[in-house]
Amino acid sequence: MTENMVFATESATDATQGEVWKILIVDNEPSVHQVTQLALKQYRIEGRALHLLSAYSAQEALQVLQLEPDVALALIDVVMETDNAGLDLVHAIRRQLHMADIRLVLRTGQPGQAPEHEVIEDYDINDYKEKTDLTRQKLRTLCYSTVRAYRDLRLIRQQQSGLRNVLLATRKTLAAANLTTFGDVVQEQLTALFGIPTPELWGITLVPDDGSGYSYLHVLQAENQNVVVGYQSNIKQLPGSLRSLIAAAMATTRAQHNEQYYMVYQHSAPELHAFLLVRMSEPSGYQRELVSLYGANLLLIYQSLLLREEIVDTQKELVNRLGNAVEMRSKETGAHVQRVGLIAEKLGEYYGLNSYQCELLRHAAPLHDLGKVAIPDAVLNKPGKLDPAEWSVMKQHAQMGHDILAQSKRPILRMAASIALTHHEYWDGNGYPNGISGSAIPIEGRITALADVFDALGSTRCYKTPWNESAIKNFLHDHSGKQFEPKLVSILLSKWEEFTDIRRTYPDAD
Amino acid sequence: MTENMVFATESATDATQGEVWKILIVDNEPSVHQVTQLALKQYRIEGRALHLLSAYSAQEALQVLQLEPDVALALIDVVMETDNAGLDLVHAIRRQLHMADIRLVLRTGQPGQAPEHEVIEDYDINDYKEKTDLTRQKLRTLCYSTVRAYRDLRLIRQQQSGLRNVLLATRKTLAAANLTTFGDVVQEQLTALFGIPTPELWGITLVPDDGSGYSYLHVLQAENQNVVVGYQSNIKQLPGSLRSLIAAAMATTRAQHNEQYYMVYQHSAPELHAFLLVRMSEPSGYQRELVSLYGANLLLIYQSLLLREEIVDTQKELVNRLGNAVEMRSKETGAHVQRVGLIAEKLGEYYGLNSYQCELLRHAAPLHDLGKVAIPDAVLNKPGKLDPAEWSVMKQHAQMGHDILAQSKRPILRMAASIALTHHEYWDGNGYPNGISGSAIPIEGRITALADVFDALGSTRCYKTPWNESAIKNFLHDHSGKQFEPKLVSILLSKWEEFTDIRRTYPDAD
Repeated sequence: MTENMVFATESATDATQGEVWKILIVDNEPSVHQVTQLALKQYRIEGRALHLLSAYSAQEALQVLQLEPDVALALIDVVMETDNAGLDLVHAIRRQLHMADIRLVLRTGQPGQAPEHEVIEDYDINDYKEKTDLTRQKLRTLCYSTVRAYRDLRLIRQQQSGLRNVLLATRKTLAAANLTTFGDVVQEQLTALFGIPTPELWGITLVPDDGSGYSYLHVLQAENQNVVVGYQSNIKQLPGSLRSLIAAAMATTRAQHNEQYYMVYQHSAPELHAFLLVRMSEPSGYQRELVSLYGANLLLIYQSLLLREEIVDTQKELVNRLGNAVEMRSKETGAHVQRVGLIAEKLGEYYGLNSYQCELLRHAAPLHDLGKVAIPDAVLNKPGKLDPAEWSVMKQHAQMGHDILAQSKRPILRMAASIALTHHEYWDGNGYPNGISGSAIPIEGRITALADVFDALGSTRCYKTPWNESAIKNFLHDHSGKQFEPKLVSILLSKWEEFTDIRRTYPDAD
Repeated sequence: MTENMVFATESATDATQGEVWKILIVDNEPSVHQVTQLALKQYRIEGRALHLLSAYSAQEALQVLQLEPDVALALIDVVMETDNAGLDLVHAIRRQLHMADIRLVLRTGQPGQAPEHEVIEDYDINDYKEKTDLTRQKLRTLCYSTVRAYRDLRLIRQQQSGLRNVLLATRKTLAAANLTTFGDVVQEQLTALFGIPTPELWGITLVPDDGSGYSYLHVLQAENQNVVVGYQSNIKQLPGSLRSLIAAAMATTRAQHNEQYYMVYQHSAPELHAFLLVRMSEPSGYQRELVSLYGANLLLIYQSLLLREEIVDTQKELVNRLGNAVEMRSKETGAHVQRVGLIAEKLGEYYGLNSYQCELLRHAAPLHDLGKVAIPDAVLNKPGKLDPAEWSVMKQHAQMGHDILAQSKRPILRMAASIALTHHEYWDGNGYPNGISGSAIPIEGRITALADVFDALGSTRCYKTPWNESAIKNFLHDHSGKQFEPKLVSILLSKWEEFTDIRRTYPDAD
């Protein structure tokens, strides 16, 4: 009978998951189970029915509780398989199963066996009753008040776990390296935190110009595991339902929502208006606090990443444009310096440099010829061959580039100074300005030397057309161990397609 | 008598703050108070004494609870000033005072007046007792179990509020604009969250070079409202007690602590080792979770700010060095371009531009003469006066600078392009290249025109010595409304010291 009852109750529970209060009766006397069931028959607490589970020993009670972790109340007899079985069960529930929220009430038929004043102090129970005291109404009151206490505890725990989840979501979002990853992570977290199955997130930033308009509009749209980040010149390109929320938020400086979107956070200052919107219905109860807490952190992380990307992109573009301006003076045009950065980065990766060094290479290598800014036109742009005096002026560009960039504390500029100085040194010592050789040449100089020549050979210059691929391969092969480090030449030849792809992706403008 | 008791209890409470459980007896019969006091005399719960507060009406009970928000349990009579006074009091406590944690037990002498089955359902109480049922032991059991429930609730609330505080601390830390503000904010938050009176925070980042050493070491030290941020070349410059923790953490990849410092978080990857340490003893209990949650967010924010500052500083330095390299070609040396950026920013502030536009000005104005990179030496460095043909070549630097920078989406480069093009236009239309006038010249061009000339007049050039201050003032005064916008000249003249301070702070190297 015992087993049947347990199973019967289990399946009933499955069918009405979350809509019943589970109460466990632990007693070795079947009559106690029957009386309790009778007293609680049809009784409802806060609109929910009760589901009574039965266990006839402490041992069995532990088994039931492991299967049913959401029991609200256990009514526990003291004397069962042993004189202290009920008391031991209390300790086991609290200390072994670590169930802190379940309400435990001792019901004893022999108070002398477990004196009330000792039991209440020594065991973490919520009430102590003599069976004879428990009239039908007293039992119902007991159930009502303990179930209500259980409900309150669960609600606080749920809020607590919501807060903890928002903190972990914030941490994961903070770890996003760029706006695209940010969009992906936030989609995941919106699902995890608020159960939104297919999240749609919009991050919108308006930066005012010196007039009354906006100089630009940055939009991040994340939907269906897809993240689009970019600039739009006109707010009218946004969906109308977003536009009206943004207009209302700017007019009232209060967060807004409509049937489709909920503004999880907004920030307005004279310099900046930023909004984060999620396609979701308005949250209620403690969810509202969680949305607001997560949203505030989200917006700050979004702005921080936006600022960083803006600065990084500006820097990259500036280095390329300035590198090109210097090349322009020497009548070399196009995306040469940008490609040298990318080729150098890839050579560094295959050479085994760490990712931090490779990133520095990508930023620093485009500045290798900066010193040419100081070389007179007469030398720099001489149509014919340079005479020895002119050649010695020309060679000064290595030292001059170094001097412009030297004595910086910034890793990128320190590496750029080193590259400017050493990118014309030869592996065999026959280069300039210092004639150093082999590993005495810093690795960034050895790498940029090869990247620069490799890209120049494939490019149009005023004095030459692009070489074909086999001519370039022959040249590199011939100069391996002389001009270039053999290991670097092998890398370039063995990964040839990857390196020539860089030119295809970043061709010269004309 | 009533008042005396309340006061007596209050001062007793003050003396033993936090070490007693407060229980409020609400009953209009003095004998009930006496009996309850007698029953609970000398009784202790979980090692703490009880402090009994008395109120003789619902009205008085509300007053007591407003003064004593940490009452654990109220024993409430039903019939007092009205037949329902006790029931109304329950609603008032829950719904008006919003006290959710205090345990409320109704004690009635006339059960017919407030039928148990209705009351338990309609009022948010934790138990319902008939006065006759409450023997001395039953009363003690009731107090014990309800006070324990109150204690558990308070503990969860405390944890919950700790998590909420960590979230708010994270938000405040996220809003830090730079590492110095970060250090300040974290010190405040360490005090607020963990009660550390004078926090000492260390953020340490090691970046490996291509060998087995570290190419640099970034250290943030925040202590006594003082934040020091910078580079150190050698880990030996750190205090020994920090060094040994860092060495241990790198060896074990586990967080460490000693008597002085607790490592709140560490991150190790091939490219980067980062550590955050706080001078504090090892936290215990749920504080440990809070420290770890906050620490993880802190380290991520620290790394993000570090990366951003690194990029911003590199960019600033790069712009200045490249600007100077271009100036060097035209034989102008020193910190001219950097000062032009700072002067332009200050002019923009007083002119009323928003802080975003002013920051753009500071970054963009140093690039105003970039087009000179494309001007032939023969013209750029001609010792004597330029002839008309040479002058028309020279004037091309405005358009050329614009072309190098144009068609970018980046706000800084867009503004720099505009400045390059228009910084030789005159307010009266007599400038070049396009002869536009007044407000048709973009504000950034008008500002940089004045900043450039103002700084050049005070500088040594190959063809001139620095002008004295009165000569410069006269020149600006004479050219106001002709070469320069009058409003800008007035700003410069009226804030003269602030502008000349910029030269004193950033003098030319020689």
